[in-house]
Amino acid sequence: MGKTITVSYEGKPYYDIEIQKDFSLLADKLSKLGYGTNKVCIIADSNVAALYLEEVEALLSPMFAFCTSFVFEAGEENKNTDTVGHVYEHLIENKFDRKDLLVALGGGVVGDLTGFAAATYLRGIDFIQVPTTLLAQTDSSIGGKTGVDFMKYKNMVGAFYMPRLVYMNISVLKSLPPRQFTAGMAEIVKHGFIKDTAYTKFIRENSKAIMEQQPAAMEEMIFRSCHIKREVVEHDPKEQGERALLNFGHTIGHAIEKLSDFTLYHGECVSLGMAGAAYISHRLGKLAEQELQDLLHILKSYGLPVSLKEFPYGAEEILAATKLDKKMESGKIKFIILNALGQAYITKELTDEQILGGISYILEKEKC
Amino acid sequence: MGKTITVSYEGKPYYDIEIQKDFSLLADKLSKLGYGTNKVCIIADSNVAALYLEEVEALLSPMFAFCTSFVFEAGEENKNTDTVGHVYEHLIENKFDRKDLLVALGGGVVGDLTGFAAATYLRGIDFIQVPTTLLAQTDSSIGGKTGVDFMKYKNMVGAFYMPRLVYMNISVLKSLPPRQFTAGMAEIVKHGFIKDTAYTKFIRENSKAIMEQQPAAMEEMIFRSCHIKREVVEHDPKEQGERALLNFGHTIGHAIEKLSDFTLYHGECVSLGMAGAAYISHRLGKLAEQELQDLLHILKSYGLPVSLKEFPYGAEEILAATKLDKKMESGKIKFIILNALGQAYITKELTDEQILGGISYILEKEKC
Repeated sequence: MGKTITVSYEGKPYYDIEIQKDFSLLADKLSKLGYGTNKVCIIADSNVAALYLEEVEALLSPMFAFCTSFVFEAGEENKNTDTVGHVYEHLIENKFDRKDLLVALGGGVVGDLTGFAAATYLRGIDFIQVPTTLLAQTDSSIGGKTGVDFMKYKNMVGAFYMPRLVYMNISVLKSLPPRQFTAGMAEIVKHGFIKDTAYTKFIRENSKAIMEQQPAAMEEMIFRSCHIKREVVEHDPKEQGERALLNFGHTIGHAIEKLSDFTLYHGECVSLGMAGAAYISHRLGKLAEQELQDLLHILKSYGLPVSLKEFPYGAEEILAATKLDKKMESGKIKFIILNALGQAYITKELTDEQILGGISYILEKEKC
Repeated sequence: MGKTITVSYEGKPYYDIEIQKDFSLLADKLSKLGYGTNKVCIIADSNVAALYLEEVEALLSPMFAFCTSFVFEAGEENKNTDTVGHVYEHLIENKFDRKDLLVALGGGVVGDLTGFAAATYLRGIDFIQVPTTLLAQTDSSIGGKTGVDFMKYKNMVGAFYMPRLVYMNISVLKSLPPRQFTAGMAEIVKHGFIKDTAYTKFIRENSKAIMEQQPAAMEEMIFRSCHIKREVVEHDPKEQGERALLNFGHTIGHAIEKLSDFTLYHGECVSLGMAGAAYISHRLGKLAEQELQDLLHILKSYGLPVSLKEFPYGAEEILAATKLDKKMESGKIKFIILNALGQAYITKELTDEQILGGISYILEKEKC
């Protein structure tokens, strides 16, 4: 029967995260939420549409008055305001109104973009997340962060807007290309690093079972990651405090991701960013040498990069790119540092030299 | 010292409406809200910028670390997603972050557009409203409805997003062109028609003093209109129920506004829409003949139109345009009807013929 985690928002239970082994209960869950007499639009990218759109459409068509889909070309470079405009057009053409529903079927790109379209079409219509990547299932589909890129700036435009349901079929992960699966592990190990020493231990000890996608290990891991993410976003839905801990590895990571023109995956960049941030934590005297090595070891055991080879930009250019990030506040970068493997905190006090130290660390190939 | 109305949101006092006779207290109010160490961007259209930008900039520059402005060409046709993109660009270039502030200095177009930019830049930054038209001071600046047009569809894209302050200097209304002042009266008489018989009486009896902009009558009128608007949006901030009453006259009105390609002002179209909706109310047996005539008389006494002469579209075309409106719900139009002058209700049960009757009424020139 799978597992359910309920997420509260504004003090009340607001949506469920369903962890299931197939899509069979999706229509039933929507029906219980009162949907059915209205229209639904399934939004997917070309990759996911080829694999699962037909199956999900077949499940939803019988229960809705009208079912349509919008498919866009796969790729982070299409997560932008232009694609959102095409979604609006599709909804207008099909006369979608405020009582209708959007379904985000796919990874983080589809979820972020669909959520933003839902947040802004007619000043907000309902949407649900049906995440199909490891990254989306354990991280981006939960918590209501929506957004798209604008002029190459990542997630520059967006809204905090909660889904009505997150329904995940963990069997679909078997169809993920290995590189994407590995990239998805970055946010998962991050959950342990920032909040949970016991979970970090689980992740370290089960790398073989997880890389082989053994069902029991996968379900346990996804459940525990969703649980950590839920806790953080419930306490701080709009990232005014604690939620920023989830940005561990993201300041340097986003800068690299942008400079790579998105040829590097988000998770790969976060992994690099975590290696850099862990080194800074170590240099600040917060993280022991052994813990730094443990962190690098865990990342590498999942095939994640901790050094940046043959990158066409230097440390100063990466530093400059971090300064255009959303995580700036009154001119200062909010940076996430580790006190221990399992305990992160936020600082605005890092100097450029300290950040450059972390960036140089991952650029020095021989060290890693 | 002016008057203050506090608006609650999510059960807590959230922002003040300041009704003042000059701009002198603006910096002081912002300072009390904790602003000052950060950046501010004043957004205005070319008309308002020419009149008041310098004065407002001079007041805000000394108290903020950085003060910039963004001015766009005046006109409803520029309230669109392209202009919002230009605002994003300006904010990115000036490295605005989540703690910075936008100021909407102008009428409804500027307020709606600035509010939407604030709602979506970096997933939301603070903004305040400094409304300079009668329409904006009594209606559009209050309640957090933000939005822009998309592909000629009015307010198709938007968000519910509350300002941190609404500061109005009612002296600026003297610089309004007469046609714009008159158009602004439409939403004001609407407040009486939908909610308040005593206020309708005040509006009817004071038309001379108001048209002459006598200070006491103006302050009283703006205060009472803001009070009614506050009550409605507090009870129903996201237009799930009662707030829809504010759409009285807007279903037919928006359709005419769109078909006129915005050559008719919003208030003029709302006036026409109210005449049509009042006629429908009368035909349904809800509104007495005398009340219908009273309503038409009040509109005409403020110079507002109640008949549509030489319009290049017929009743069927106007009806078709109403069906693309946001006020659709599961395929049915939410229409606002009057039980009396001072008491409105929402219906989804009108037939096309009944709506056509209302449209034809305002198209029949000789009647009005």
